[in-house]
Amino acid sequence: MTKTAAIIGGGVIGGGWAARFTLNGWDVKVYDPDPEAERKIGEVMTNARRALPMLVDQPMPEPGSMTLCSTLEEAATGAELIVEAVPERVEIKHKVYAQIEAVNTDGIIASSTSGIMPTDLQSQMAHPGRLIVAHPFNPVYLLPLVELVAGEKTDAQHIEAAKEIYSSLGMYPLHCRVEIEGFLSDRLQEALWREALWLLHDDVATADEIDAAIAYGPGLRWAQMGTMQTFHLAGGEGGMRAMLAMFGPCLKWPWTKLMDVPELTDDFVNKVGGQCETQAGDLGPRDLERIRDDNLIGIIRSLKQNNWGAGAVARAHSNALRPAMDDTKPLLTQNRVVPVDWTDINGHMNEGRYGQIFSDAAEEVMAHVGADEAYIEGGLSYFTVETTVKYIAETHAGERVHVYTTVTQGEGKKLRCFHEMKRASDGELMATCDQFMLHVSLETRRTCDPAPDVKAKVEALAALHASE
Amino acid sequence: MTKTAAIIGGGVIGGGWAARFTLNGWDVKVYDPDPEAERKIGEVMTNARRALPMLVDQPMPEPGSMTLCSTLEEAATGAELIVEAVPERVEIKHKVYAQIEAVNTDGIIASSTSGIMPTDLQSQMAHPGRLIVAHPFNPVYLLPLVELVAGEKTDAQHIEAAKEIYSSLGMYPLHCRVEIEGFLSDRLQEALWREALWLLHDDVATADEIDAAIAYGPGLRWAQMGTMQTFHLAGGEGGMRAMLAMFGPCLKWPWTKLMDVPELTDDFVNKVGGQCETQAGDLGPRDLERIRDDNLIGIIRSLKQNNWGAGAVARAHSNALRPAMDDTKPLLTQNRVVPVDWTDINGHMNEGRYGQIFSDAAEEVMAHVGADEAYIEGGLSYFTVETTVKYIAETHAGERVHVYTTVTQGEGKKLRCFHEMKRASDGELMATCDQFMLHVSLETRRTCDPAPDVKAKVEALAALHASE
Repeated sequence: MTKTAAIIGGGVIGGGWAARFTLNGWDVKVYDPDPEAERKIGEVMTNARRALPMLVDQPMPEPGSMTLCSTLEEAATGAELIVEAVPERVEIKHKVYAQIEAVNTDGIIASSTSGIMPTDLQSQMAHPGRLIVAHPFNPVYLLPLVELVAGEKTDAQHIEAAKEIYSSLGMYPLHCRVEIEGFLSDRLQEALWREALWLLHDDVATADEIDAAIAYGPGLRWAQMGTMQTFHLAGGEGGMRAMLAMFGPCLKWPWTKLMDVPELTDDFVNKVGGQCETQAGDLGPRDLERIRDDNLIGIIRSLKQNNWGAGAVARAHSNALRPAMDDTKPLLTQNRVVPVDWTDINGHMNEGRYGQIFSDAAEEVMAHVGADEAYIEGGLSYFTVETTVKYIAETHAGERVHVYTTVTQGEGKKLRCFHEMKRASDGELMATCDQFMLHVSLETRRTCDPAPDVKAKVEALAALHASE
Repeated sequence: MTKTAAIIGGGVIGGGWAARFTLNGWDVKVYDPDPEAERKIGEVMTNARRALPMLVDQPMPEPGSMTLCSTLEEAATGAELIVEAVPERVEIKHKVYAQIEAVNTDGIIASSTSGIMPTDLQSQMAHPGRLIVAHPFNPVYLLPLVELVAGEKTDAQHIEAAKEIYSSLGMYPLHCRVEIEGFLSDRLQEALWREALWLLHDDVATADEIDAAIAYGPGLRWAQMGTMQTFHLAGGEGGMRAMLAMFGPCLKWPWTKLMDVPELTDDFVNKVGGQCETQAGDLGPRDLERIRDDNLIGIIRSLKQNNWGAGAVARAHSNALRPAMDDTKPLLTQNRVVPVDWTDINGHMNEGRYGQIFSDAAEEVMAHVGADEAYIEGGLSYFTVETTVKYIAETHAGERVHVYTTVTQGEGKKLRCFHEMKRASDGELMATCDQFMLHVSLETRRTCDPAPDVKAKVEALAALHASE
């Protein structure tokens, strides 16, 4: 049976919740007095409908309905989960809970507060046991983290039920076992933000520079390991204990207005070091380094495709290394190492990535004949019509491979290439691809003749490659 | 001509520098008195040789040589860049600089210090103008950020020269214009670390929970945008100004021992808000949201492939949504949305991704006949020998597509599938793939018969699909 969530407050967070619930098959009833609410939620929904299904390799459930209600009571009535996402003022929240309690006696009430203690939130409720904090992160429809916090009067069963609900929405429920203002994530974030505000305030750096100091370095690590594990690895063979010995004293340096720090007694160092070792479990430093590196490669390569941040740096570096190509027979169209994100469950290069490397090889041929990025921006390109790939020998991550390309046909709209992929170390043939392309107009999406200089170059290459 | 860098100190940072320089074609001379230095550097080099070339889609330069020197003087002599990566004690560094100056009078001396002011570092040097800070991040061979800082006596030209050098190594040189202890990145990192240490100290959370509070949420954002831009977006239409109005007061709450915060005067709010607006440039909120979402999708999908962190959550969510498959003719083997990281310069699904979706479809067939992940772990699998893909209609990001698979041959070691990919909305045929697979032993990497139950199931499916 379809489940129903009420969302009280339809801003960036409430709208994000509405999207995550409906896209996972829940019916949602939203209440927000803002006359602009419908438009604002609609914009978040548009983003979410596009983005969330891309994370999932399977069909998502039939989306639930979303109803904008004209009263809070209408939204809350009958919902098994009532999500509160109203402004961060405790008196507003108390009033909202009273209105909910008047019409709904058994749904879980989940506050999206980013820092108010649930004990304070539930203090005036008739049935405070069902009040929990479920604190999400923007964009709610993509980021998995949700912090779950119980107040003194919260029934433990509701935390357990919430874990199941949020897991079923594709989230990572983190139970903050000790109730504390700001919970875990925002305390950590705000510590950084405070320091950032001081840097900006004191004209040490601009917002853009402050952000660069994170996004090109520590932020890439934080996407896959927190500070504790990151520093445990940065400590080399001595792990976190070595980091505390080396940098612990610096934490007390007068380089900030915010320097109060726990006394680094032997007991405390053992506690921190021991927890980092527990966290690592069976994974030794070499294992964790490998995992971290594979994650960083994947992250930077994904940003490279979007030409953003660290990925834009890697792209520029790649482009600067691109060798000039002469007319040879065959052309050397790829000379690269197989990255780890190209491998599959059989431990070798995924068959789809052969398609990619041959496609990349064809792009090099295109660029060589003048059908380069500027040409494509001008509205003309080649589209692939058919490929036949033969898989001859296995290819593994880290191996350097070459692709040699022969232009086997080049006349009018037609461009046909035969690619041979060889292991660089010993020249063993690993795969071949026969690729047939047609020249198209990107405006009409139909075939057309190439520009004269491209046509001439293609025909010249085909002639060269046909010669004995 | 090959350039030469000296690396003084061969730990995690020095070893990382040695790797980045040699892999970019520099000759490197390393000095470290640690008798274990050779082994330790060798381990970093092994990681780096595997990882760094995977970021680059072009051939990297011929690697330079790496020489372990028995004296500091031997390493420093003749180097145009001397990288200092010795322990963070200013008296050790002063001694190292004196030794360098005795044998090398014109190389740039670049300290890897993560926080000591270059003015203090250069205070006892005969030629202090050539001392700069170039502070990298672990792993140095993968992370692009390097903070460049000048001391009072540093010649500006050396900062400019350093920018060029580090850019040529694939790095992002961030010039910290104001000299300040801890520079930018470590001040931000250490603020967070201090808060983390308090949380652990006070038994609010374990190292593992503290890390989860970052890596499943804020950390994913920080890999592509810093806190300023992130909060500018989280503020919805009001941007950073709305965030400051909403959360600024919380920064002063007594929820931490570290709560000193700049006064949020109108002037200061205008300064912060204005800088965030400048940072956004021509990109409006909707543009930035799209960019952020595309980045997050790529990041989470890359982690999904490694089954780590937020990616493991997304993978579990996908797997939970996997529908049961009945014996139908044909089988519905893919039902998914085309993610944005599958598109190419022509604005449509990259031809290589057709290979991937058909490969994924074949994996579903394999799982359906019993050749699932457990079977593969048991040492048996199917390898693809040949595929022919016909590209019929264009496919765009966000479109839902179905793949229908007919088993056209299933006898002994042979498994042949014919896949048809259709647009879900209107059933239009977009591509076909004829895929021929052979059953193999993963131990011998040679063909062999499938297990009897898999063989029977394959033959039954082939018979069903051959029937009228």
